[in-house]
Parts: sequence; structure tokens; C-alpha cells
Amino acid sequence: MAETRLGTRINGRNAMGSNLTTLCYIERGDEYLMLHRIKKENDVNRDKWIGVGGHFEKGESPEDCLLREVYEETGLTLKSWRFRGIVTFCFTPETEKPTDAYQPLCEYMHLYTASDYEGKLTPCDEGELVWVRKDDVLRLPLWEGDRIFLRLLRGQNSFFSLKLSYRGDCLTEAVLDGIHLQLPYHEQTAV
Amino acid sequence: MAETRLGTRINGRNAMGSNLTTLCYIERGDEYLMLHRIKKENDVNRDKWIGVGGHFEKGESPEDCLLREVYEETGLTLKSWRFRGIVTFCFTPETEKPTDAYQPLCEYMHLYTASDYEGKLTPCDEGELVWVRKDDVLRLPLWEGDRIFLRLLRGQNSFFSLKLSYRGDCLTEAVLDGIHLQLPYHEQTAV
Repeated sequence: MAETRLGTRINGRNAMGSNLTTLCYIERGDEYLMLHRIKKENDVNRDKWIGVGGHFEKGESPEDCLLREVYEETGLTLKSWRFRGIVTFCFTPETEKPTDAYQPLCEYMHLYTASDYEGKLTPCDEGELVWVRKDDVLRLPLWEGDRIFLRLLRGQNSFFSLKLSYRGDCLTEAVLDGIHLQLPYHEQTAV
Repeated sequence: MAETRLGTRINGRNAMGSNLTTLCYIERGDEYLMLHRIKKENDVNRDKWIGVGGHFEKGESPEDCLLREVYEETGLTLKSWRFRGIVTFCFTPETEKPTDAYQPLCEYMHLYTASDYEGKLTPCDEGELVWVRKDDVLRLPLWEGDRIFLRLLRGQNSFFSLKLSYRGDCLTEAVLDGIHLQLPYHEQTAV
């Protein structure tokens, strides 16, 4: 059993969407609302910065989950949003010996941006919420592959599907709309 | 345990993406390649017409599944494709008494169109493959909600998220990008 991006366990859960999540970057002018994961012990995201979001509950569409999770984590109610892409986040524990038989655990992150919301920001159980200038976000401690989709969020308007494969903390593969990206990733390098 | 859109069982499967599927409408000029589900007994899609596709396997991104399923069912290899939308297909058996506690079974269908492929069409185990004029597709026996997304595929270029809730064969709710559609659906009626 392994922990996933959003800090809960991917395996041993029921079959109903447990590996589906939303991840939202809420915008205020040239800032994103970032969550600094410093509150939970044994958090796979410990000390990393991510957007807000969480796991689908039974019967939820991506938007149902988005609205619920954003409200639960921030106190804000989204009035509109943009569905930007899907990230297939595949994780192989560092301790796992490479074999053909091993299948990575995958989480399907539904990625949104939103700049239209109402309500008052409230503290979040999962970490500290901080408005960060978009230009500064890439300098924070992030998952390596987040740098790829954060660039896509700023530079690309069309919906994208990005597969990111990790071995432990290390990004080993990135595939954008079926095209392998060269790693380490620099913008607009595709092989 | 209930059968789902694409003819396999949604419940009692392992947690790794069993309720994630792809559904692809392959184009040839003004025709779609449609699958007429007439070969399997006890097929929830029996006699209905749908596109080609199937369930994600472990470790697959939406595109991994798309390419594999299209090849398995048609013998064709897609050279490019367009990821058009996600359909959250929620199903409550007709026999289920309405209660607040009941949670529908959901399948997340990743919807594609593709006009660029190579190879030779081969027979499909799941049904009969037929090229059908796009104008004629809506006159075939279809799932009621398919008429909604088939119209979107022809009329809308932006990515969409559509939630369709069924009780047995009957469409009881349709929500497009968070907006409830009036049922029965006629194009561009939103409430």
C-alpha cells in the first residue's frame, strides 16, 4: 500500500473512484492559492506546495468533487472554473525491485484553474494556504512533474492529458498527449 | 453488482481504474465507425449502437487505453486523436428502491474522436462494426444520454464534462460543465 499525491492511500480502498482526484489552482490576479503541506505527519506531500483538492466520493462527477473539495479546504465557493487537463500520476515505490510484472499505482488528477469565487478564506486542516505570485511558484519545493503542468496551465489553452511516472520522488517518464517529453523537462522540448 | 455501459461489471473489481473507460468515435469523412452490440448474451448494451473502447488496465493513461482498445476492437492504429470530454455515467438499477443512502455506480468515460489511423478493419468480438453517416447516428437505438454528447461532439470544440444519471434505462439527470440540462434534452436548452 502506498500513499499518493493528495495524501491518502491508493490501495485497499473500494473500487468507486478512489484513485480519482481533483487539483485546483485558484487565481487572484497574478497569484495562485497554494497549499503548503506542513500540518500532517506521515504526509507524502510533507513540505511540498500543491493546489487544493482531493479524492472523488461515490457518485461524484469531476465538478462535484471540485466544488466540495475547494469549499472544504478553503471556505471558498467557486462560481466558475476551467477544466484544464488530466494528469495520470503513476507511482512505483523506491523500494520496489523493477520487474515486468510490477504495475505502478495510478492516480488520475483532474486539473482546474478558477478565478471566480465567493466567500472568505478559512484555515485548512491539510496545510497552510498562501497566495503566491505565479512567477514565484516554480521556485517552491514541488513535485518535479508539477513544473510541467504548471507551465502548461500558463501557456496552453487547449485541454491536455499528461502522464507522469515516478519512482519514489524521481520523475522517470512524462508523456504529453501521447508524445514523450525529454527529461529533465525544459519547455517545448519533445522527443 | 451491476453491468456498465461497456459491458463488464463495475463492482467487485480491483481498485485500479476499473470504472475508467475510453469511448472513441472514429471518423471517415461524414461517417462514424459504430459498434452494434449484437454478439454477446447478457450484454447491458445488447442491440444498442456505441463507439469502440473499453476499460483502463493498470498503469494506463487515457491515451494508453484508447490506443490499445481501438486496436483490439478494430485492428486500426490511431495516429492522432482528439480528447473531447469526460462523461460521468451514473447508474442506479431499476430494482433499487430510492433511498438517500444509495450511491449510484459510476463509470468515467473518456470520450475521443479520431480521423487519422492506419491498418485494416478487422471483425470485433463485441459486436458488428459499421460505418454510419453522422446524420443517421441519432436515429439508431442509443443510450438516451449518448444523443447529448454526440451532439456536443459535432457542435462544440471545447472540452466538456457531462454527468449523466440513469435509473435503469431512463436518463434522470444531465449536467453539462456544472449546469443542469432540461430533460428530455433538446439542443441548447439549459435551465
